[in-house]
Amino acid sequence: MHRGTDEFRWARRAADKIAMPSTTPRDMIRLGGGLAFPDELPNIVEEAAAAAAMRSEGLQYGPLYGLTDLRDAVVAYLAQDGVSAERENILIVNGAKHGLDLACRVFIEPGDAMIVTGPTYMTALSIMKTHEVEFVVVSQDDNGMKVDELEETLVARRKSGRPLPKLLFDVPDFHNPTGITLSIERRQKLVQLAIEYGFRVLEDDPYRRVRFEGTSIAPIKSFDIGNHVIGLGTVSKILAPGLRIGWVNASPEIVGRMAAQKCDHGTNPFVQRIVAQLFLNRKVDEHIERVKRTLRVHRDTMVEAIHEHLPGSKVDVPHGGYFLWVRLPDEVDADQLVQRAGELKVEVNPGRLSFAGPAPGQFIRLAYSFCDPTEIRAGIARLGEAYRALRSTRATQA
Amino acid sequence: MHRGTDEFRWARRAADKIAMPSTTPRDMIRLGGGLAFPDELPNIVEEAAAAAAMRSEGLQYGPLYGLTDLRDAVVAYLAQDGVSAERENILIVNGAKHGLDLACRVFIEPGDAMIVTGPTYMTALSIMKTHEVEFVVVSQDDNGMKVDELEETLVARRKSGRPLPKLLFDVPDFHNPTGITLSIERRQKLVQLAIEYGFRVLEDDPYRRVRFEGTSIAPIKSFDIGNHVIGLGTVSKILAPGLRIGWVNASPEIVGRMAAQKCDHGTNPFVQRIVAQLFLNRKVDEHIERVKRTLRVHRDTMVEAIHEHLPGSKVDVPHGGYFLWVRLPDEVDADQLVQRAGELKVEVNPGRLSFAGPAPGQFIRLAYSFCDPTEIRAGIARLGEAYRALRSTRATQA
Repeated sequence: MHRGTDEFRWARRAADKIAMPSTTPRDMIRLGGGLAFPDELPNIVEEAAAAAAMRSEGLQYGPLYGLTDLRDAVVAYLAQDGVSAERENILIVNGAKHGLDLACRVFIEPGDAMIVTGPTYMTALSIMKTHEVEFVVVSQDDNGMKVDELEETLVARRKSGRPLPKLLFDVPDFHNPTGITLSIERRQKLVQLAIEYGFRVLEDDPYRRVRFEGTSIAPIKSFDIGNHVIGLGTVSKILAPGLRIGWVNASPEIVGRMAAQKCDHGTNPFVQRIVAQLFLNRKVDEHIERVKRTLRVHRDTMVEAIHEHLPGSKVDVPHGGYFLWVRLPDEVDADQLVQRAGELKVEVNPGRLSFAGPAPGQFIRLAYSFCDPTEIRAGIARLGEAYRALRSTRATQA
Repeated sequence: MHRGTDEFRWARRAADKIAMPSTTPRDMIRLGGGLAFPDELPNIVEEAAAAAAMRSEGLQYGPLYGLTDLRDAVVAYLAQDGVSAERENILIVNGAKHGLDLACRVFIEPGDAMIVTGPTYMTALSIMKTHEVEFVVVSQDDNGMKVDELEETLVARRKSGRPLPKLLFDVPDFHNPTGITLSIERRQKLVQLAIEYGFRVLEDDPYRRVRFEGTSIAPIKSFDIGNHVIGLGTVSKILAPGLRIGWVNASPEIVGRMAAQKCDHGTNPFVQRIVAQLFLNRKVDEHIERVKRTLRVHRDTMVEAIHEHLPGSKVDVPHGGYFLWVRLPDEVDADQLVQRAGELKVEVNPGRLSFAGPAPGQFIRLAYSFCDPTEIRAGIARLGEAYRALRSTRATQA
């Protein structure tokens, strides 16, 4: 009676995509994922107990768009960045990724084009792939996405009659994985292009407040005209990723369609109350200050260790965020380095995962968020061991 | 510069679907949605504070498949129903609806056929519609979905060369909206048909434990052969809907593909810890007993009030669950009744929303879960007032 799995008729989007449960050995030094620094996760015991006591709010089905108090708190938070929003612009979601997925559900048909930087946030790529998008990849320099290159592409597509992209995805502040911040001129130009070519910009901005030095640049959303920018936010980097609370900031029409695609009957109201309270009692602000102080030291430690242990590689020093993006010498294969590093008990991410197409070189992404300086130094030293081994193998072969 | 909304190129699934934020006036008696009884929501203050104190678990990114302890607690819970599962069969999701959506992402291409009962759970219909399914509607009698009718449809489709359905969705215990429980013979037959015709059965079972009298029938999943049944569960009706914790029970291959479609980076680990603890310390079991005692009285109160205030309508008395499904006399238009009732400050659901196609008669769905007996009596009395007004209008017109 049992039929083989070849008889499962998966949807195209699911045919070759299977997530394996992963476990990390205890002695692994984790420089891979953008996890929070565990020693400084916020103390939310009081807020959790208080929210649990508000039973008929937190334990009942919540409002589809989110708790009024949290939506208002997000409005106030965005105002600090010069973004003016009203409550009806805000939809509470289960993290910014959930917002990206809902935007794809609302705008994307299989085969529609979407603009991304090369490289870009790897999990976002993975979500966009489930919507079967065609990627339009635009390269970056020190000022972020090359908007002139984007314009040339759009001109050429229009000329040739190919359908124009529907969405653009970018992380303008401390870009994942490169740490680059998009210049103000390019932000303004992006909005102009969005209007001219009729696409929507998804501005994913989790790292904006994690700035160690220098001055912030106004969000793309602050230059928006005619609802061409959809802001995606999250408390994952300013509070705690486990809370799974994010938001969308867009026109009521877009927000209404995204809400209609939610399959969670409203994001968890109990956790929303906790987060609303943490915004109101300023614990979010306090936590951001703590994170900035700590991660600045982490970043400096990692940069120094890279200079010591990975000679011949190239790394730019970002002014904030969670990641360093390391260009390896051509003779060091990134995938081999990642594998060897794993054998030496240090976890790093292959750069390949951050590209929609083939990687134009050898890269790895390193997160300095999770480990303390001692672990970071030990981790980069182990990575350096793998690195030297690969280079000497190459030298011997040559 | 501003361009009109006609230039938004929505995806088909989002083109005409917009969710309005809803507010319910304070003096409205709510017999519409399947909300929890607020006076008896569980006290989780202790568990919430304890989970918040486990910072590096609850506030960090959690495992994609869910906390091991919660997956094991679900395995134990399912075992009580005679369903044998292992940890690797369980995926934790944001409520059972989220599981339905993930199953659609994994199996459904636009235009694929899906089998549902007529009527069925209205929010499930709404989710399936976002995946642009073709509905194959099978009618019900007192023993649930007419599987012989289903078989005839499948035979005819195969004969005519039309593609066979990929999924079947049903609520076999205290069906939403009808309260009907599917007979054991039909459960077995459904599995046979699933094997014969190559579809998967989604068994959505939120109300199973809310049984007031009579004996439970083994879940469809307990008759599964060859992974043709996907179980969907939730704590919404056995604990609290606001927690947004549900699960999927399926083969590791299906679960792996569903996990790959999750866009939440793993369901909230902090809330998962709370729920795992509530399973372990037996508060779930205690809560179920309390819910059963209370809702039985609610049901009896509502049935009695219907007999008094809605003469000429027909209602079957379910042995559990949250809802009564009322067939109105043909001369009473359900939509008009719902509107008039709203004017008299009682909220009920039009039966139309529970049908994939046109409703074959006049129905309303009434939930007895949220209101206490006094409110239920007052609500049905107000409904009766609207009902009498509509009938007398009809009588005058005739």
